[in-house]
Amino acid sequence: MSDTPDSAVRTYIAQYRAAFLDDLAEWLRIPSVSAQPEHDADVRRSAEWLAAKLKETGFPVTEVWETAGAPAVFAEWPSGDPDAPTVLVYGHHDVQPAAREDGWHTDPFEPVVKDGRMYARGAADDKGQVFFHTLGVRAHLAATGRTAPAVNLKLLVEGEEESGSPHFRALAERNTDRLAADAVIVSDTGMWSETTPTVCTGMRGLAECEIELHGPDQDIHSGSFGGAVPNPATVAARLVAALHDENERVAIPGFYDGIAELTPAERELLAELPFDESEWLRTAASRATLGEAGYSTLERVWARPTAEVNGIGGGYQGPGGKTIIPASARLKLSFRLVSGQDTDRVEELIRSWVASLVPAGIRHEITFGGATRPCLTPLDHPALQAVARSMSRAFDGEKIRFTREGGSGPAADLQDVLGAPVLFLGISVPSDGWHAPNEKVELILLLKGVETTAHLWGELARALR
Amino acid sequence: MSDTPDSAVRTYIAQYRAAFLDDLAEWLRIPSVSAQPEHDADVRRSAEWLAAKLKETGFPVTEVWETAGAPAVFAEWPSGDPDAPTVLVYGHHDVQPAAREDGWHTDPFEPVVKDGRMYARGAADDKGQVFFHTLGVRAHLAATGRTAPAVNLKLLVEGEEESGSPHFRALAERNTDRLAADAVIVSDTGMWSETTPTVCTGMRGLAECEIELHGPDQDIHSGSFGGAVPNPATVAARLVAALHDENERVAIPGFYDGIAELTPAERELLAELPFDESEWLRTAASRATLGEAGYSTLERVWARPTAEVNGIGGGYQGPGGKTIIPASARLKLSFRLVSGQDTDRVEELIRSWVASLVPAGIRHEITFGGATRPCLTPLDHPALQAVARSMSRAFDGEKIRFTREGGSGPAADLQDVLGAPVLFLGISVPSDGWHAPNEKVELILLLKGVETTAHLWGELARALR
Repeated sequence: MSDTPDSAVRTYIAQYRAAFLDDLAEWLRIPSVSAQPEHDADVRRSAEWLAAKLKETGFPVTEVWETAGAPAVFAEWPSGDPDAPTVLVYGHHDVQPAAREDGWHTDPFEPVVKDGRMYARGAADDKGQVFFHTLGVRAHLAATGRTAPAVNLKLLVEGEEESGSPHFRALAERNTDRLAADAVIVSDTGMWSETTPTVCTGMRGLAECEIELHGPDQDIHSGSFGGAVPNPATVAARLVAALHDENERVAIPGFYDGIAELTPAERELLAELPFDESEWLRTAASRATLGEAGYSTLERVWARPTAEVNGIGGGYQGPGGKTIIPASARLKLSFRLVSGQDTDRVEELIRSWVASLVPAGIRHEITFGGATRPCLTPLDHPALQAVARSMSRAFDGEKIRFTREGGSGPAADLQDVLGAPVLFLGISVPSDGWHAPNEKVELILLLKGVETTAHLWGELARALR
Repeated sequence: MSDTPDSAVRTYIAQYRAAFLDDLAEWLRIPSVSAQPEHDADVRRSAEWLAAKLKETGFPVTEVWETAGAPAVFAEWPSGDPDAPTVLVYGHHDVQPAAREDGWHTDPFEPVVKDGRMYARGAADDKGQVFFHTLGVRAHLAATGRTAPAVNLKLLVEGEEESGSPHFRALAERNTDRLAADAVIVSDTGMWSETTPTVCTGMRGLAECEIELHGPDQDIHSGSFGGAVPNPATVAARLVAALHDENERVAIPGFYDGIAELTPAERELLAELPFDESEWLRTAASRATLGEAGYSTLERVWARPTAEVNGIGGGYQGPGGKTIIPASARLKLSFRLVSGQDTDRVEELIRSWVASLVPAGIRHEITFGGATRPCLTPLDHPALQAVARSMSRAFDGEKIRFTREGGSGPAADLQDVLGAPVLFLGISVPSDGWHAPNEKVELILLLKGVETTAHLWGELARALR
């Protein structure tokens, strides 16, 4: 028994569908490209537009929050029920750059509806997936006869996600009290495919470092000195080669200590997904898989920690040859982390490991970038089950499967700062073209998103009570 | 008993010393920088100046030889004795770039004599060391009363050595008959120090290659795909790491096959040189030695083959991080070779070794640059003994020790093309500052060079007869 009758929800959505799509199109017309300073005013206009729309939707509190960069939007709608749990929705209102000449068939900032899809920059990433919450909460109220949501509903929609969320954590930390929640719903991911609805249960964390290796004071002649002094480019290469053992496991001592291993049940669920490796390789623009022995490709990218070299450089890189021992070399490494790995401890392990491998005569410096902690919600967590149930109701009772994300996101900051479990609700599909020309959202899925959130607040109110 | 009375030689040199230095200074004023197209006319002027000066010296044949690049100078002075051996002297008349603002105390193309030294670009490398042959052959004639040298004397002075001698081998091959000789004297090296006169006995060879490694069609996201596809930068690094074993020996199968190992006598001679490792490290601008186990530093740089990475690049090298698996990576490797290593065979070994290590999913291309064969004259070769004896006479009977050069030079082309042993006669010292600001030559050593060559033609005539 649900508290939001499914048919009432559908009737309500059908009634307001056209106005909802018109509003979304209006928002998509604002080119809120956070990476391009010439669009700073557009990003601000986008925040103000959203705040006004949320006010119109019924949120009694709507605020534009300033940061050291682009503004975020905060909105709040108290339940009125003193026992109601609090849920914070996360999304972003900025978009990736887009220009007609990149291969767009139509103006990226003039939305076009065609063949059941809306084409525009931000249609899926992330305006469409933020915007379904507006009609969703109205449908929730209409179908239940409530005047306020079943949960204390908060929204935080940032304006710098496409620029790496440089000020997001500070914003969250300054506003811990206002943002406090029992669960976070991240509305910025996707599902497996049009025909396989899924809920993401976690994201990998990230540690990044840059290693500078200094040898001779300047490039020296490899004829005069070759074979007799340490070469910093060789040392850089040896570090990279030592990153993995012969089974492609990360060989840094202690790296795997305490990680959450996949349970047989989790492996079974992942194996159930209709995974086509040759299709996946096409998406990866690659010709072969290679990874940790004993794990499937999906397990490798979603549930196993990794070490990758993102950049390496040293010595002469121009045309032809130059017989030198270079003065220095540089490495950029990134590590994807999984539940159980602490970013501070991993950085300490990396630091010691590097120091143990650099030979006498080579000076090294290691600099860490901002780390992101992994997040993972257990499959039996009541809030995760509530998300899956809501989605299943929207998808005509279909079985909801579980995925993960290999990347990392600012959601992990909310997990850290608020100490709340993070749940992911996304209806975008791989073909939506995030960051690519002709980004689109499938209207049928967008409305399933509306429908899912119409059920979600009731489901979560029960699950978290 | 020598055929050139030492005192007669010295008297002659003392008499013409001032004119000789004035002439050298005039030549040094021509900025024959082969690497800078704006000096093309100067390089030609330098060749013409030298040809005229050699004619004035007495060479009956002097010619400017065209190449696809800068011109060379050829001169010939037949002995007149039908049994006389033929000797070809090699040098170059082009110089490295030089500009006052690089740290020169005086104009690099306005020679200054100060404290017994002549400062100018090319003073030591290589105009000074080519030019001592002019007064040398005159002193030889004056002291012996001959009208022609004791050997059939040929000079080949190229104009592109500082640009890597790109057309030198072709020039030699086109003129095999004219250049035919029983021995080649390379007049473009140095000796151990002011107080330790030495003769170089060989140079290492060189093989160079560039390896391109291609992975994904474009850079891909290391969160989405990291840990599951091969990374070309990792493969590049693993190749470099696999170049050496734990004893810093080159680990390419077959690399050491057939090489001329140092004899105990040769090792003893090298060990006798007054080698100061901390001083050597200062010259190498390095802080520690590292090389093949079981060999001294001098042995490593002079007598052992090596593998060095001259350049490595792949992925993101800008500021900060970028979480990608790069589409490609590049390596530039060079290999110093010693006597017994065939460049073609070494290239084949490298090719097979690379192919054996590149994993499925990575495409690779390997390109070899022009290789140089090693050259080494045995210590008991009569021509080498003749060079050492001539030098000892110039250096007041001092013991002449033997060195090698770690680098490679166009001399090896003459060895190949003419099939003649290559001998090295150089009076430059490490402090002369080749390729650096304030290049100079020690006048006392320059005149020892004149004196050595005054004895050399008689000594060689006997040794090679």
